[in-house]
Amino acid sequence: MSPDTPLLSRLRTLLTDHADVLHTDPETLAAHARDAAPFSEAGTPAVVAFPRTAEQVRHIMRTAYELGVPVVPQGARTGLAGAANAIDGCVVLSTARMDRILDIDPANRLVRCEPGVVTKRLNDAVAEHGLSYPPDPASWEHCTIGGNIATGAGGICCVKYGVTADYVRGLDLVLADGRRMRTGRDTAKGVAGYDLTRLLVGSEGTLAVIVGATLGLRPVRPPALAMLAQFPTLTAAGDAVASITAAGHVPSALELLDRATSQAVADHGHPMMTPGAAATLIIESDTAEPARDLASMALLCKEAGARNVVTASGAEESRQVIEARRLVTPALGAFAATLGGRPTAFIEDVAVPRSELAKFMGTIEEIAVRNRLRVFTLGHAGDGNLHPTVVFDESDADEFRRARTAYDDIMAAGLALGGTSTGEHGIGTLKREWLTRELDPVSLELQRGLKRLFDPKNLLNPGKVVEA
Amino acid sequence: MSPDTPLLSRLRTLLTDHADVLHTDPETLAAHARDAAPFSEAGTPAVVAFPRTAEQVRHIMRTAYELGVPVVPQGARTGLAGAANAIDGCVVLSTARMDRILDIDPANRLVRCEPGVVTKRLNDAVAEHGLSYPPDPASWEHCTIGGNIATGAGGICCVKYGVTADYVRGLDLVLADGRRMRTGRDTAKGVAGYDLTRLLVGSEGTLAVIVGATLGLRPVRPPALAMLAQFPTLTAAGDAVASITAAGHVPSALELLDRATSQAVADHGHPMMTPGAAATLIIESDTAEPARDLASMALLCKEAGARNVVTASGAEESRQVIEARRLVTPALGAFAATLGGRPTAFIEDVAVPRSELAKFMGTIEEIAVRNRLRVFTLGHAGDGNLHPTVVFDESDADEFRRARTAYDDIMAAGLALGGTSTGEHGIGTLKREWLTRELDPVSLELQRGLKRLFDPKNLLNPGKVVEA
Repeated sequence: MSPDTPLLSRLRTLLTDHADVLHTDPETLAAHARDAAPFSEAGTPAVVAFPRTAEQVRHIMRTAYELGVPVVPQGARTGLAGAANAIDGCVVLSTARMDRILDIDPANRLVRCEPGVVTKRLNDAVAEHGLSYPPDPASWEHCTIGGNIATGAGGICCVKYGVTADYVRGLDLVLADGRRMRTGRDTAKGVAGYDLTRLLVGSEGTLAVIVGATLGLRPVRPPALAMLAQFPTLTAAGDAVASITAAGHVPSALELLDRATSQAVADHGHPMMTPGAAATLIIESDTAEPARDLASMALLCKEAGARNVVTASGAEESRQVIEARRLVTPALGAFAATLGGRPTAFIEDVAVPRSELAKFMGTIEEIAVRNRLRVFTLGHAGDGNLHPTVVFDESDADEFRRARTAYDDIMAAGLALGGTSTGEHGIGTLKREWLTRELDPVSLELQRGLKRLFDPKNLLNPGKVVEA
Repeated sequence: MSPDTPLLSRLRTLLTDHADVLHTDPETLAAHARDAAPFSEAGTPAVVAFPRTAEQVRHIMRTAYELGVPVVPQGARTGLAGAANAIDGCVVLSTARMDRILDIDPANRLVRCEPGVVTKRLNDAVAEHGLSYPPDPASWEHCTIGGNIATGAGGICCVKYGVTADYVRGLDLVLADGRRMRTGRDTAKGVAGYDLTRLLVGSEGTLAVIVGATLGLRPVRPPALAMLAQFPTLTAAGDAVASITAAGHVPSALELLDRATSQAVADHGHPMMTPGAAATLIIESDTAEPARDLASMALLCKEAGARNVVTASGAEESRQVIEARRLVTPALGAFAATLGGRPTAFIEDVAVPRSELAKFMGTIEEIAVRNRLRVFTLGHAGDGNLHPTVVFDESDADEFRRARTAYDDIMAAGLALGGTSTGEHGIGTLKREWLTRELDPVSLELQRGLKRLFDPKNLLNPGKVVEA
């Protein structure tokens, strides 16, 4: 047992089942020090709390507020911006055990749940009622609804179905000082007062702790079909995306792999991927007539210059096409293993206007060459959101320096094209400086004012998003 | 010319074309004193300004800020909550002449425009590029984009396509002190910082003046077909809405007329409406196969007990079906004309969870009987947003009192069913007290803090939404 600091002794008094809730062993502290963002600062928490009820969260927040101890909320720590990283001496407040699905309401296409519910579990549960919760971040088998809301998570199908923010109707919150607050509504529409719900989405635990959410649902998605098209040039792939958009198609996935990523997946043995392609598009359609719509998109790809076009005729073939996208992570892992030293992946998250996609990818390739690095770019072409991934040996000081330079160069190039430094991963600690470059100074001043309004003592996840 | 107050003399010095911009004649002042909300307080402005540029807006705001004069932004004054009502001695700042469409960008499905663009004109302009801007408030032939954003406007097709808020990507603003600010982005996705864009949507001109907007667009909507179903009981209509939802249908309109409204439209001569129905549903589908989907919905209506079901087989017949919805206003006008005195319509805007729709409509009928009034309820059944309309003789003091009582009773009933006091019309001056009843007190305190953060002198449309 750790020394009885005022914080711990107060919490032990307040929480009847404190042995279950409060953890101070070094392993737990170390395991909860950071999320999945590399190179981001992280400290060592004084305690990791696993409350099971909103009332326990209230006690924890009020105690920390009175003692002036910072609190860092955490979900599944799958975030990629350091937003869930601990601060020395803080309380890490994990909502992982608040994982009840409270109410599935098919008549109103709503679900109420606690923040610790894993995204895939939520989707499986509502599917039994013929409903779906579309947002599908890559980590959806592990990440939680609370973390999705806090980071404003995206995913693959949001090109058609929207992001997490589009599904949050209302929130149940605990403020920095321990007060409870509800925002939003149970109705499909509503404009009563300023939209605090939306303000909280993407606020990375800096304004309040999410202890419950009311989420909108959609009818279950129709069966989808998929296709794959490979192009001899990046420009040709960009042209295909533009003509698919211009023709009014709304695919449920429109993913793009650059030359390096296409090659890595082909090398990893995917049978539909041919070597030597400059870019690959993976397209999924779940319209009422996916075969017809895919045929039309396949034609547009060919007209743009695609050489290898594979259109799935059924579910199993579609699964194989989509497998090419899923293989990216293991394929990059296999490449990393060839590097020696301490191989690391630095995942970017820049979004540009869709029309600038090909130009942006060309610039990324130039940045990779200039810095003598391997950059694998894949991303959500349909909404211009790319994840260029620098894979390098962290133990090589010079390579580390070049990786950081490339990371910054890529972000600068994205902003110069009218883009944003984060499409769906968030600011956290990793992109605070970039936020100050991206935002209008007046807007930044108001953002800081918002932080002070919600958290006047600057105790809730301090140092994330904006400095108070 | 009006007396040379410090306000007017300063504005005349700053604005080179002041004779064009500044209007102080009594007719203009009177014409711009209020929006379309009945019974809402309104004062007389000192001047009505019609700036043509953001720079002129800046001059006006800075001057008003220095002199401590309140400013009330106005669009087309079609609002129904008094949010655009003048305050004695204020500057009314009309954005009606800032009406340029700046850029239509089909590749990124975006449009940039000034706030004074009329909603229908924007939709017509983007339609030439195969695109659509779906939000369709009833006043869309007159209302402006700036007003739509300021009020968070809805419409008929938002049951499928979402409300104004869902289309606003970025805003160009002038703050209370005259500083410019940009929020949002040009990209489809983005999570850089707190979502100020969404905070501004629906803020009724209390946080900043909108001088420009970047709006997302969709592909042009496919041709739609419509149907109409009449029911012997409200419960049967409610059951039909529930089973349409449960079956996974997503109609592009799902409108409901109660007994009084159905009868008024039938009396007004609509050939498809039969007398004596307790409720009418008007349904539109613009899926890839609207005929098939309408046939399925028609069957569900019949199973729920519908007696008169008319399914259009083509565009002209669909137009006739939709005409039943459009006839509501003239039919109510015809009824009002029979009242004598000063006939007035009081339009409510309560949203309840969809599952409570039939119960809510039954309660409204009881409230009408109890208060000896005619209440015509129509609304967006698909998202539970009803517009019960009390039509009465304003010159009859007792009837006026009963109309106000009914208005309050309807709102209280909606809130008791888990609803909201405003689905799409806003708070304005009309529902400020209801907002304090609807919102959590902690939320209300933060709402007031937000107002003070953006407008510390309380000069921007003071008294609307929340008291500072």
